[in-house]
Amino acid sequence: MTTKIIVFEKPKLKDPIFIEGLPGVGNVGRVAAGYLVEELKAKKFAELISSHFMPIAVIPRGSQVEMIKAEFFYWKAKNKNQNDLIIMIGDSQSADPEGHYEIVEEVLRFLKQLGVKEIFALGGLNIGIPTERPKVVGAVNDVSLEKKYQKYNIVFDTSQRVGSIVGAAGLFVALAKYYDIPATCLLGETSGMPFLPDPKSAEAVLKVLSDILNLKIDTTKLEKRIKEMKEFMRRVEAMQSQLLRSHLPPTEKKEELSYIG
Amino acid sequence: MTTKIIVFEKPKLKDPIFIEGLPGVGNVGRVAAGYLVEELKAKKFAELISSHFMPIAVIPRGSQVEMIKAEFFYWKAKNKNQNDLIIMIGDSQSADPEGHYEIVEEVLRFLKQLGVKEIFALGGLNIGIPTERPKVVGAVNDVSLEKKYQKYNIVFDTSQRVGSIVGAAGLFVALAKYYDIPATCLLGETSGMPFLPDPKSAEAVLKVLSDILNLKIDTTKLEKRIKEMKEFMRRVEAMQSQLLRSHLPPTEKKEELSYIG
Amino acid sequence: MTTKIIVFEKPKLKDPIFIEGLPGVGNVGRVAAGYLVEELKAKKFAELISSHFMPIAVIPRGSQVEMIKAEFFYWKAKNKNQNDLIIMIGDSQSADPEGHYEIVEEVLRFLKQLGVKEIFALGGLNIGIPTERPKVVGAVNDVSLEKKYQKYNIVFDTSQRVGSIVGAAGLFVALAKYYDIPATCLLGETSGMPFLPDPKSAEAVLKVLSDILNLKIDTTKLEKRIKEMKEFMRRVEAMQSQLLRSHLPPTEKKEELSYIG
Amino acid sequence: MTTKIIVFEKPKLKDPIFIEGLPGVGNVGRVAAGYLVEELKAKKFAELISSHFMPIAVIPRGSQVEMIKAEFFYWKAKNKNQNDLIIMIGDSQSADPEGHYEIVEEVLRFLKQLGVKEIFALGGLNIGIPTERPKVVGAVNDVSLEKKYQKYNIVFDTSQRVGSIVGAAGLFVALAKYYDIPATCLLGETSGMPFLPDPKSAEAVLKVLSDILNLKIDTTKLEKRIKEMKEFMRRVEAMQSQLLRSHLPPTEKKEELSYIG
Repeated sequence: MTTKIIVFEKPKLKDPIFIEGLPGVGNVGRVAAGYLVEELKAKKFAELISSHFMPIAVIPRGSQVEMIKAEFFYWKAKNKNQNDLIIMIGDSQSADPEGHYEIVEEVLRFLKQLGVKEIFALGGLNIGIPTERPKVVGAVNDVSLEKKYQKYNIVFDTSQRVGSIVGAAGLFVALAKYYDIPATCLLGETSGMPFLPDPKSAEAVLKVLSDILNLKIDTTKLEKRIKEMKEFMRRVEAMQSQLLRSHLPPTEKKEELSYIG
Repeated sequence: MTTKIIVFEKPKLKDPIFIEGLPGVGNVGRVAAGYLVEELKAKKFAELISSHFMPIAVIPRGSQVEMIKAEFFYWKAKNKNQNDLIIMIGDSQSADPEGHYEIVEEVLRFLKQLGVKEIFALGGLNIGIPTERPKVVGAVNDVSLEKKYQKYNIVFDTSQRVGSIVGAAGLFVALAKYYDIPATCLLGETSGMPFLPDPKSAEAVLKVLSDILNLKIDTTKLEKRIKEMKEFMRRVEAMQSQLLRSHLPPTEKKEELSYIG
Repeated sequence: MTTKIIVFEKPKLKDPIFIEGLPGVGNVGRVAAGYLVEELKAKKFAELISSHFMPIAVIPRGSQVEMIKAEFFYWKAKNKNQNDLIIMIGDSQSADPEGHYEIVEEVLRFLKQLGVKEIFALGGLNIGIPTERPKVVGAVNDVSLEKKYQKYNIVFDTSQRVGSIVGAAGLFVALAKYYDIPATCLLGETSGMPFLPDPKSAEAVLKVLSDILNLKIDTTKLEKRIKEMKEFMRRVEAMQSQLLRSHLPPTEKKEELSYIG
Repeated sequence: MTTKIIVFEKPKLKDPIFIEGLPGVGNVGRVAAGYLVEELKAKKFAELISSHFMPIAVIPRGSQVEMIKAEFFYWKAKNKNQNDLIIMIGDSQSADPEGHYEIVEEVLRFLKQLGVKEIFALGGLNIGIPTERPKVVGAVNDVSLEKKYQKYNIVFDTSQRVGSIVGAAGLFVALAKYYDIPATCLLGETSGMPFLPDPKSAEAVLKVLSDILNLKIDTTKLEKRIKEMKEFMRRVEAMQSQLLRSHLPPTEKKEELSYIG
């Protein structure tokens, strides 16, 4: 079956910007994008399922079974200085190496159809130690983006801090170049503790992103929301953590600043 | 070669209901569905072979070699309150993660052609300890099914007892939603002892299922039949057990109620 | 690239019989079929390469690099009681489970085009202990074949001795049924010592096969030939042995009579 | 997504010769081909990306993210006794066994379109001990090539020294035969120390190659260049080393002269 996107509604969007938040280190990207969906009351319009996810059905509540999936939401700009948004959040990344490429490319084709003009891929950057004031590290697929976003609170000495980005977030940005879509990866520093979503890191990423997109996001409920989603997050973390163990290059572990996006 | 369904006969069926029983924990689903085929004298009409099964030919008796396969049987309703049935039993689940998706989707396409109106996927639920009176736990792909079947002896607080369902049974139910087929997973509690088919759990599942379908199934021969099938079941268990070891997410093992459907 | 058959010559053959000898336990099938090619001076007419073989180029002699491949030879009948033959020998079986299905099916399609009327798949049967007089155990894809060949020196209580056949030999016989080609697996008993081709077992298989096909094969040179091919056989064994380790179901090892065809 | 070649420019080349240098033991091929690109100031005209590479985006410098990829460069002959060249260097080999076949075949199809007349695949040959004067060992896809290049400083008793060549370099040479392209593998002896590119071995290979191609390559800067590329090489080595661990046939390790091309 490979990878399928099932579209429930075809929204009319003007020059939309795409935001990606799949599970990863500290679940930074997933938490930040999921909170954005809730705060903006973004509307779900499509789902992605893939044989590259684990062959598992999940039962998030009651007796209802669900596929492991990613979900697409849209939000229409309220003010002139804002853009229409498409936000993707997901239960899991690919369970096998090749699947990352397939899923990311399938989404990029979908985004091209939807007229997406720019991409932000959100993730966490494992710095190994707890930090009170996590920085946001940026990686771009075109050098002009670094200039465009230099006034925001983003650290761009990325190569020295991050050798490589494993998984979807990095591939989204790197592969988007071949689709002529400017893309930026925003990585929140996190201690990389397993099974612990990092709200501080997600907040840091959200602040930079909402600055760029002229959104007013009240992040005070973030920690509360994560607690509410505790059981669900635990399962997502468990799945993600298992995927990492089977994927993560052993040699990468030797690097001081290893990273899963 | 991927997955192929070879059809020997095209039965004319009216609004058939599909019952799935592949090997799994305690072989509950396989035993229950296989017993149903025998008791109803259901007629074989198709086979499924797949390169996602292990590359092994089996010799169940004499000198005759057989592919690892799943088999489809049909049964025509005898009374007005019954439905025509299609029953699938199999030697094995997919040997690789992606294959589960492919096999389940190939079967769902086949069922759609056959006009299937509802699906029951049978399986076992590992509760870790022996139980004299195994309960039947239900999972559904639409909340209305829980109401429809609440008068039967099914436990529906599934999310708390079962975080996720690994393998074909869960995928059948979750994926059937995208094919607009209502589907229910019936999981018999079992101690999950390896190499031991659990007749008590299979009986519990059969009782619920025959109640729903208005079938009169004499389950007294169930234990005897399992003994007769001893050598065959041992091989199926050996294959299944091996698949589980290679597939089962390590983190799932930490959960108190892990499950393979 | 998956699997490709490259045809150098299109031989005109009348009702040819196909003989398969890929590496396996004791290399019985590979040795027997290879000796047949040499003794009959059969002519090579096609090669099979596949991305399911290991990604290795071999240098059998001098400086010349070769793909890992299987080779097809034909031989035209000299007498009226003989049949035209197609013989396949190979360096390796598939390196991954799915590949066995693909390679075997690709070959069966090719054989159907060539008008093949019957198949003999040769292999070894690991009985765990050395034997002076190895028997030949038969497995068939149609019960009529057991009757047809009962006068030859073949043991047909196969199910009790062999639970399942791993790899190409078993799949050839089982899958050929779906192509309407009668097929018989001839398995020579062998002690299954690794890295040691078993000439006695290969001889036993060759004797049964040449009886059936009315061929006069002088098997006295068999042991000598194996010694000449020593270095090549050692490499084939090394590759095969490695494949087995990664493929062999752990549970099968517990069976007293495990088998790789 | 499998494997894609993205072409930026269609150079007009006359009977070009193709030189391949992917990472491998001692990174001999990658270093030699990369140095050739720099010294000749060859021009990049195409990139290859593949889902068979690891699902990792790399950040070689600044904040700019790149796909793991191979790059194609061309160089036009300056003198009559030279040939137009196409040089391929890459970050990685395939991360899974099947991918080697696919990537190599995709490139061979591309080379056929570009009219390539001959292939040189560069690599290292692990001899297990340090050597001051590494020899260059040759392997060919047609015996006539051994005669053609016997006057150069190449050792051709390859079969005794190298049983098999794992990975792209060997497959390029062996598979090129089916595309009617003469191909030679040039393997520099190296001690096979992990994480250490071997400049002496790369120099030996470069000397033989530039002799054959009538190029004047100043190899004195080779060691200096490797030091400049230190961080990048370390990452390439880390990725390659990890791939080797997961791919290398365990049995091959027993051979005295094992090799990764």
